[in-house]
Amino acid sequence: MIQPHGGKLVNRMITEDQLPGNVSVLTLNEREKNDLEMIGCGAMSPLEGFMTGTDYNSVVKNMRLENGIVWSLPVVFSQKKEDPQVAAGDTVALTYNNRIRGIMEIEEIFTADLMLEAIETLLTDDNAHPGVQYLKTLSGTYIGGKISAIDLRDEEPFREHRLIPEETRALFKEKGWKSIVAFQTRNPIHRAHEYLQKVSLEMVDGLLIHPLVGATKADDIPADVRMKCYETILEKYYPSDRTALSVFPAAMRYAGPREAIFHALLRKNYGCTHFIVGRDHAGVGDYYGTFDAQVIFDKFTEEEIDIIPLKFEHAFFCNKCGGMATARTCPHTGADRVFLSGKKVRAMLIDGILPPPEFTRPEIAQILMEAAAK
Amino acid sequence: MIQPHGGKLVNRMITEDQLPGNVSVLTLNEREKNDLEMIGCGAMSPLEGFMTGTDYNSVVKNMRLENGIVWSLPVVFSQKKEDPQVAAGDTVALTYNNRIRGIMEIEEIFTADLMLEAIETLLTDDNAHPGVQYLKTLSGTYIGGKISAIDLRDEEPFREHRLIPEETRALFKEKGWKSIVAFQTRNPIHRAHEYLQKVSLEMVDGLLIHPLVGATKADDIPADVRMKCYETILEKYYPSDRTALSVFPAAMRYAGPREAIFHALLRKNYGCTHFIVGRDHAGVGDYYGTFDAQVIFDKFTEEEIDIIPLKFEHAFFCNKCGGMATARTCPHTGADRVFLSGKKVRAMLIDGILPPPEFTRPEIAQILMEAAAK
Repeated sequence: MIQPHGGKLVNRMITEDQLPGNVSVLTLNEREKNDLEMIGCGAMSPLEGFMTGTDYNSVVKNMRLENGIVWSLPVVFSQKKEDPQVAAGDTVALTYNNRIRGIMEIEEIFTADLMLEAIETLLTDDNAHPGVQYLKTLSGTYIGGKISAIDLRDEEPFREHRLIPEETRALFKEKGWKSIVAFQTRNPIHRAHEYLQKVSLEMVDGLLIHPLVGATKADDIPADVRMKCYETILEKYYPSDRTALSVFPAAMRYAGPREAIFHALLRKNYGCTHFIVGRDHAGVGDYYGTFDAQVIFDKFTEEEIDIIPLKFEHAFFCNKCGGMATARTCPHTGADRVFLSGKKVRAMLIDGILPPPEFTRPEIAQILMEAAAK
Repeated sequence: MIQPHGGKLVNRMITEDQLPGNVSVLTLNEREKNDLEMIGCGAMSPLEGFMTGTDYNSVVKNMRLENGIVWSLPVVFSQKKEDPQVAAGDTVALTYNNRIRGIMEIEEIFTADLMLEAIETLLTDDNAHPGVQYLKTLSGTYIGGKISAIDLRDEEPFREHRLIPEETRALFKEKGWKSIVAFQTRNPIHRAHEYLQKVSLEMVDGLLIHPLVGATKADDIPADVRMKCYETILEKYYPSDRTALSVFPAAMRYAGPREAIFHALLRKNYGCTHFIVGRDHAGVGDYYGTFDAQVIFDKFTEEEIDIIPLKFEHAFFCNKCGGMATARTCPHTGADRVFLSGKKVRAMLIDGILPPPEFTRPEIAQILMEAAAK
């Protein structure tokens, strides 16, 4: 089994009766709520809490924690205007929608240059970037310290698919998979995605479809519709003994290259040995070059990353090839290739037109069309 | 660039004017003629000649040369009844079809237990096995020693595709390919083969189609027909900037697992980093288990082999998947899968019926049908 990032799988999950009484209560926003769950369950090993200033600054500037371990994105808790004043040394409860979800032992309260964070990590400070928009909602003061998270998965959606790293690792062991490829997605599975997954699956023992179900931008397809797509396509088109579906309750940062590293390292914690990095991974708009999220892996040694990135080009159905392909394997021209833009597909679905089966499996197109009609 | 097997690329090629005068002449059989060319050009690095007794016995028993380097099959020269008596210390000329093709400095003449060789290396002494049949034509005395081979490629077929290891290495460098997958074949390329190649090509920079054109058994499809198939399919269905065609002038041993190791190590010498091992690689009849040629790689460390074996299952077109797949990626049943036995395909071709395009590209089927009609 692959080692967790940093060598040790963190588990900082507690039950509600372990909550301390009589402490100040600080408010989590949606991303922070996602991060709390991810840190607590070990998905963000070796992190044990929200970052303090030294780690934060080191990550922003060098993509490494202060101790040198690769880490590409800040994982931070922001001070909220309405919240009570707190200080280093305090233990505080963390709440989301009036539900206490964990505690933090405050180590440091520090000021951050949020637009420097934006430029370094998102590579832009453009207001149209959803990650920049998020940062602009923050106070500019971060509160760092170790956390403990209450296991509230029974109250969360997709409970049966909400496996924490020690559970996916146990699942892989039980199935006898030694090599496992993870597929990150915040979109339904079109045939292009299926092709990349199956090409990978020809080489490894198992495939983990690992959809992100944390905070996404408003125009992404809702997680419940996507989950229905995943369950349906797995049932109809994937061998059940070699595939698993579990959710990845992280928030999207839309940070492109840096988020590809982040997504890969976290999947290592889940026990995966390979990670699919397609074109414009975790990208949004035109902020990142098509293959920047693949090239960034070259900045680190293979040992530092350990999980193997599988780097793919854009896939399509080619009429002359009579099957799925990419520019790496198909010599034909654009005219032979079935290509539809996301915009075009959305328009078809709204108009009640099924995209062609070369683009989307009919069963999936049906689900998307029904969701679009709502 | 990947290191040659054993660390140094051998080159023992000479020109005809470097032949010594007034020496005894020994006769090569077809396999030995192939081996002489392969040793001379460095394809069999680190071998510098036909094996002496210690290497031969070590290889037969332990799949290693006396010095510990992995080597899975004997490469030997047999004493012929009609040839003159020679002795250790002699330099002799080696001839095939009355054409001198190289010289050997004899180091040792030794007796071999050919049926032990058969059982250890072919895993059978059954007379129906073509490798056993070959051994039964030999004297049981081997003559070992370093060789030099005259470069007679200008007299050989497929001259423009007859690249020696230093030439394929130069080609890969010129094309900027860092990772190259080699495909060994002694058959025309059906869609199943194309699929394995293209799945591999999604992951690496270049594909070397490397058909074996040395001695094969009589009922294999002749090399010139196969070459026409390769040239045609490459032109029609493969991206020219990512594929190369060159011949592998080795003789088939039909040794299954041991020959898979042998084929992989030799492709490393040609500069390839990955090697496709399908089901029943280098097999014949029912002598080997379907995946024995994949499992055997586990007997060695990855560093010892170095070239990475890509292990695939049987591929097919699945009507429900609407594309190529294997049992690793397709959940459907045999009834959905387009399957034709080799026997059935041969019968169709002889009867002038094109196999379906899901099985063989029409352009290839046409070449095979025309060849079958001759």
